[in-house]
Amino acid sequence: MPGNSLGKALTITTFGESHGPAIGVIIDGLPAGLPVKKEDLEFELSFRRPGRLFVSGRREKDEPEILSGIYNGRTTGSPLAILIRNTDVISSFYEEVKNKPRPGHADLPYIMRYGYENWDYRGGGRASARETATRVAAGAIAKKLLMLTNTSIAGHLISLGPIELDEKVSFEEILCSKYSPVRASKKSLESKYEELVKSATVEGDSYGGVAEIVVNNPPKALGEPVFDKIKADLAKAILSIPAVMGFEYGLGFKAAKMKGSEANDEIIFKDDKITWKYNNSGGILGGITTGEPIILRCAFKPTSSIRKPQKTVDLRNNKETEISVLGRHDPAVAIRGVTVAEAMVALVLADHAIRSNVIPQVKLSDKDVEIIENNWKRYVNSCKPTEGSQ
Amino acid sequence: MPGNSLGKALTITTFGESHGPAIGVIIDGLPAGLPVKKEDLEFELSFRRPGRLFVSGRREKDEPEILSGIYNGRTTGSPLAILIRNTDVISSFYEEVKNKPRPGHADLPYIMRYGYENWDYRGGGRASARETATRVAAGAIAKKLLMLTNTSIAGHLISLGPIELDEKVSFEEILCSKYSPVRASKKSLESKYEELVKSATVEGDSYGGVAEIVVNNPPKALGEPVFDKIKADLAKAILSIPAVMGFEYGLGFKAAKMKGSEANDEIIFKDDKITWKYNNSGGILGGITTGEPIILRCAFKPTSSIRKPQKTVDLRNNKETEISVLGRHDPAVAIRGVTVAEAMVALVLADHAIRSNVIPQVKLSDKDVEIIENNWKRYVNSCKPTEGSQ
Amino acid sequence: MPGNSLGKALTITTFGESHGPAIGVIIDGLPAGLPVKKEDLEFELSFRRPGRLFVSGRREKDEPEILSGIYNGRTTGSPLAILIRNTDVISSFYEEVKNKPRPGHADLPYIMRYGYENWDYRGGGRASARETATRVAAGAIAKKLLMLTNTSIAGHLISLGPIELDEKVSFEEILCSKYSPVRASKKSLESKYEELVKSATVEGDSYGGVAEIVVNNPPKALGEPVFDKIKADLAKAILSIPAVMGFEYGLGFKAAKMKGSEANDEIIFKDDKITWKYNNSGGILGGITTGEPIILRCAFKPTSSIRKPQKTVDLRNNKETEISVLGRHDPAVAIRGVTVAEAMVALVLADHAIRSNVIPQVKLSDKDVEIIENNWKRYVNSCKPTEGSQ
Amino acid sequence: MPGNSLGKALTITTFGESHGPAIGVIIDGLPAGLPVKKEDLEFELSFRRPGRLFVSGRREKDEPEILSGIYNGRTTGSPLAILIRNTDVISSFYEEVKNKPRPGHADLPYIMRYGYENWDYRGGGRASARETATRVAAGAIAKKLLMLTNTSIAGHLISLGPIELDEKVSFEEILCSKYSPVRASKKSLESKYEELVKSATVEGDSYGGVAEIVVNNPPKALGEPVFDKIKADLAKAILSIPAVMGFEYGLGFKAAKMKGSEANDEIIFKDDKITWKYNNSGGILGGITTGEPIILRCAFKPTSSIRKPQKTVDLRNNKETEISVLGRHDPAVAIRGVTVAEAMVALVLADHAIRSNVIPQVKLSDKDVEIIENNWKRYVNSCKPTEGSQ
Repeated sequence: MPGNSLGKALTITTFGESHGPAIGVIIDGLPAGLPVKKEDLEFELSFRRPGRLFVSGRREKDEPEILSGIYNGRTTGSPLAILIRNTDVISSFYEEVKNKPRPGHADLPYIMRYGYENWDYRGGGRASARETATRVAAGAIAKKLLMLTNTSIAGHLISLGPIELDEKVSFEEILCSKYSPVRASKKSLESKYEELVKSATVEGDSYGGVAEIVVNNPPKALGEPVFDKIKADLAKAILSIPAVMGFEYGLGFKAAKMKGSEANDEIIFKDDKITWKYNNSGGILGGITTGEPIILRCAFKPTSSIRKPQKTVDLRNNKETEISVLGRHDPAVAIRGVTVAEAMVALVLADHAIRSNVIPQVKLSDKDVEIIENNWKRYVNSCKPTEGSQ
Repeated sequence: MPGNSLGKALTITTFGESHGPAIGVIIDGLPAGLPVKKEDLEFELSFRRPGRLFVSGRREKDEPEILSGIYNGRTTGSPLAILIRNTDVISSFYEEVKNKPRPGHADLPYIMRYGYENWDYRGGGRASARETATRVAAGAIAKKLLMLTNTSIAGHLISLGPIELDEKVSFEEILCSKYSPVRASKKSLESKYEELVKSATVEGDSYGGVAEIVVNNPPKALGEPVFDKIKADLAKAILSIPAVMGFEYGLGFKAAKMKGSEANDEIIFKDDKITWKYNNSGGILGGITTGEPIILRCAFKPTSSIRKPQKTVDLRNNKETEISVLGRHDPAVAIRGVTVAEAMVALVLADHAIRSNVIPQVKLSDKDVEIIENNWKRYVNSCKPTEGSQ
Repeated sequence: MPGNSLGKALTITTFGESHGPAIGVIIDGLPAGLPVKKEDLEFELSFRRPGRLFVSGRREKDEPEILSGIYNGRTTGSPLAILIRNTDVISSFYEEVKNKPRPGHADLPYIMRYGYENWDYRGGGRASARETATRVAAGAIAKKLLMLTNTSIAGHLISLGPIELDEKVSFEEILCSKYSPVRASKKSLESKYEELVKSATVEGDSYGGVAEIVVNNPPKALGEPVFDKIKADLAKAILSIPAVMGFEYGLGFKAAKMKGSEANDEIIFKDDKITWKYNNSGGILGGITTGEPIILRCAFKPTSSIRKPQKTVDLRNNKETEISVLGRHDPAVAIRGVTVAEAMVALVLADHAIRSNVIPQVKLSDKDVEIIENNWKRYVNSCKPTEGSQ
Repeated sequence: MPGNSLGKALTITTFGESHGPAIGVIIDGLPAGLPVKKEDLEFELSFRRPGRLFVSGRREKDEPEILSGIYNGRTTGSPLAILIRNTDVISSFYEEVKNKPRPGHADLPYIMRYGYENWDYRGGGRASARETATRVAAGAIAKKLLMLTNTSIAGHLISLGPIELDEKVSFEEILCSKYSPVRASKKSLESKYEELVKSATVEGDSYGGVAEIVVNNPPKALGEPVFDKIKADLAKAILSIPAVMGFEYGLGFKAAKMKGSEANDEIIFKDDKITWKYNNSGGILGGITTGEPIILRCAFKPTSSIRKPQKTVDLRNNKETEISVLGRHDPAVAIRGVTVAEAMVALVLADHAIRSNVIPQVKLSDKDVEIIENNWKRYVNSCKPTEGSQ
């Protein structure tokens, strides 16, 4: 049964394998009138692109081609299709994988499910994190749509391996972490993360990390009883990301240790508006957004592909053996995972904003477009490092 | 937009408010031939029923009526509808709530979304955990279907407030925890949990807790790339439960602190079968089940309804005020939440088992029915406390 | 796989068998604030109720109970469940059917699909037209929602067996045909239809007929490229009605005999508004509503249940035999089918009106409610026969 | 809301405009192991390709590129994406259309819906029949899947304008009509159709036609109560085709004129198998396939684009005017429409075959693949005209 689509009012359907000709995504349900440029997609893609410091060395330009749904630079209400060709494919790294399933990877489950003979092992095939580039491209459009309500989404790594963020950070700092090569929201943290990542590379090992995503100025009253609670749809979207093993929002797992009188958030007046004292619930109550910032966290496991030899089996002779996973891999998938998680949050919120009439289903007005363009410009220009700083 | 349905191959659609005439569920997608008795539903419902020790005092018999989809005691392939009348409704408790939204509750978000005048405040309306009875009834049928592969699902509380389970427990012990009034899998833990719950009741406060759900002997190779990964669908189902603030599976958040060489699970031979050394991935790799036990955990926040006075606002006069939530509430929703979480896991697995041809979509064979009946009988009789012990 | 739900933004899920305890429907996706009374449902149900002249003699009161989704007489945004108990069930008529599948009926296909042993043969089980009562109840609510745009839907029989309507009729006449026992929009036609129906009853035979449904003042610009064209969704909804074997809109099959220069509708100005000269396209172009009246027709086959003996097989001994179908049946299902077809059109239009932001997804305003109430009152009172005339 | 996807177990999502860079389709839900070659797609596409005699002169090679979902020539269980670049685009024909909506076309409704400024008028944009090439490509794969049950689908024109087929034809003759440039199943009919089409071209006019699609050897027991009846899903799929204004199956509209004793089909034994005497119900009873040939018909209106001048309005000055539609158009869309209708039937049947476990959801066996390959070879080679005959 089909499992490659997500969203009800705004639906993405993705396709493509790591070492096939291309990956891509169809976005259906966009209202007409949204200005979309290739540059918008490239902006977001630049923050998950491989081939940079501290991430996989695969040199993909990730150049998106918009195939449909745009006329005169604006959406038409028809599905918008984005194609990204795979260009830097070196499948030879993967010959060994064909018979030695990699620990921590989807190799064996895919073989179990689809049959050894139908398994596109090259680069992990469909299970490869390469697929997430299409999510980021689609997420760029969702982010732009959300500019209508001046909603912005930002993520950072609150921990990497054993190292944890132990300071308060502003939304601005989180937003600017995308220019940090290790997705740190504080300079002091950045250097510690970098040390760790370097050590992992040297050891042929990898680290996990926890990403936190914050949504500033989210529309309130989004989310539907009972199963399409915003927290439920966020959890699904986040857990659909490869390597994510946990999700929490607001107090999260900490709430389980607390008393009701501590965890409950008092309802107060602030500037004559009803609000909550601590936003303990991370912007979501009863599965519906409160209008306070949405705060969620997700746990990425360490990159499964490591050079360090690990035990596995040889499928040809049914014997135990070892594998040292070569290829070009991230020392910590969590770093690039932050951008992917942001995209998933954007897609869920845009979907729900349309479901709740906050964003129109059919057509944006001229006024809408103006608001979006202005907010998007501000968003794109925020935090921009000065020439030569990166 | 509709948000009250879950599942693609096996779909449940629920309805009903806490203090309306009834709650209920339609289960669509069941193959013909499954023997279903009212007693099957009552068996599962008995473990979340209110009116027992340590849980809400509301005296609901939770008597399910099967309205359709059954002929001669077996499913016909048509939708099976279950109705549970609300009988012990005392709405007077809720008069105060109408103008004083309760901290930690969905009151205010529902008002924001649907309008004050359309808000059925009585007993929390649709946001009430009462709705989860319908999930448990539907889950009973999903559990029974899964008997075809001899799959069983059990849950327990691995922590309640500050108290944590610190021993290894067997699947059998977890399974039998349903007869513990505080959902403890160890006797020593049970008494500690009970003390805590009693103290909460005395203080007019409540506690959170962490439930762990284990699936024994799950079908392997369930789950679909990319968005309908089994971990994603489980996360959504679990987060759709009221009061759940976090989800993890396998190593979960712990993985984020680890190295790849620690978190990766070595692939080995055991009894001539390929398997994993530690099941670190909690039975799910690449979003697909491995055949190893599925292990997941979810964090329940403390019951939001507490007697202890908390700050809120009075909507009539826009002033800050206090509320002491009366009504009959659980000192820890996590206790009854375990049964609900089990039901959600059962529904997701049954849905995916049908999606993967492990359970037939249209009709069970006589052989299938025999296997199901035998395994179900064993399941129902397991752990049964001796006469008078509960 | 589930097949008992229809609609994306407004979804109905139906359940129930002809001779089971009850039939019912859940309507999900209704905005909050819509006033719904039991009487609204009963009004529409009265036009398809059995036990009247010229239709089946089964005496069902069809008394709907609203189980959820209403508070203070208005929708809450939660699913609205409607239950109709079966009261006048005489299953003994059906003992013969168990072994002698009825020509023209679903008996044999249901047996093929779900197995003889799982087949609820009593009254046709799920395949019975009794199920359509739930559609009419749901359709009543859809019709009421559409009062927001002052859209009304009416149907009549343009042919019954060999007799055809050969005059022009006004929308008002079509609307008032619901008070005709044979669904005729002209008095002269009514008497001819009645003669025909009486002759069929005497002969133990039945007749087919063609229903025409007209939507007055439909919202324009409804319908979505490519697969959810309004014509496609209408066709599915209409063909989902038992006994319907054909669908057409506008010129329909006649268009296939024509030249482009005849079938194309010229675009003109009328009262300073752009419009079409003849509405040849029945209010739908490119799958999108034009704002002109929607006109569609559907062919009902003759009632399959006839007293006249027909050849069939005896499943016990695999021999050819005869059956004379007893029970209480309509001489022409097309008569009551008109009301069902109206309901299906209402449900599709309401679904699309929500999908196109013509009706709000979440909540109606006070102004909206006032418009709806006024238009609904007018609709209910239109054509009312004077005391004693029926 | 999204409207560009169809199917539940086998889903297609299409994208692309007539004069944009490309059109394409993602097929999700294919089991692993199906051999798919570019040539399979090209084979089916060749029967709807423009640039041939009696159809539009646009010279599109319609060369499909498979972007994903295939490894070693077989499906992997991942979504299969097909891209067709637009190469012969002459948008200049359409400058006039921008301000003069064409009678019979979607121009005005698209403007109403999405706004004049967002309307891609070039070649009809998304409303163009060009989009149907993607359906034919996807349909090729569905047809191939259905080879597992040796099911084949064929269509022909039973009428073109006023000319009607008045002889019995065999399935073989229908199947071979694809090599007729006017889709006639009889040589005598072919010459009459050709004359008519030539006259239309000369007059600058066009004709409608009725296509009949026959499914030989369909799987029995496909179709789901209540809304996903096979007849309902077929009707939706067929009405989603541009220019189709009517659908019927079996006796269709004729049944409405008949008595029950005539329309009911007697159930008999033939070769020791239970069957129906006349297949009056066109292979579908109760919305479920009976195993007899499925027979359905659909009415295509005449091509809306005609050279003959027609009245329309000029949107710049709000005055009535005339338009003579240039561009390269079919004298009768019904001709190429037959191939599209075949594809839609194939897609619906394959979807339902998977929903009913007749085709596996996850993976084909080696035996399955062998059957498919053999039957496909026979299908492709059937009716092949001898060298130089076309």
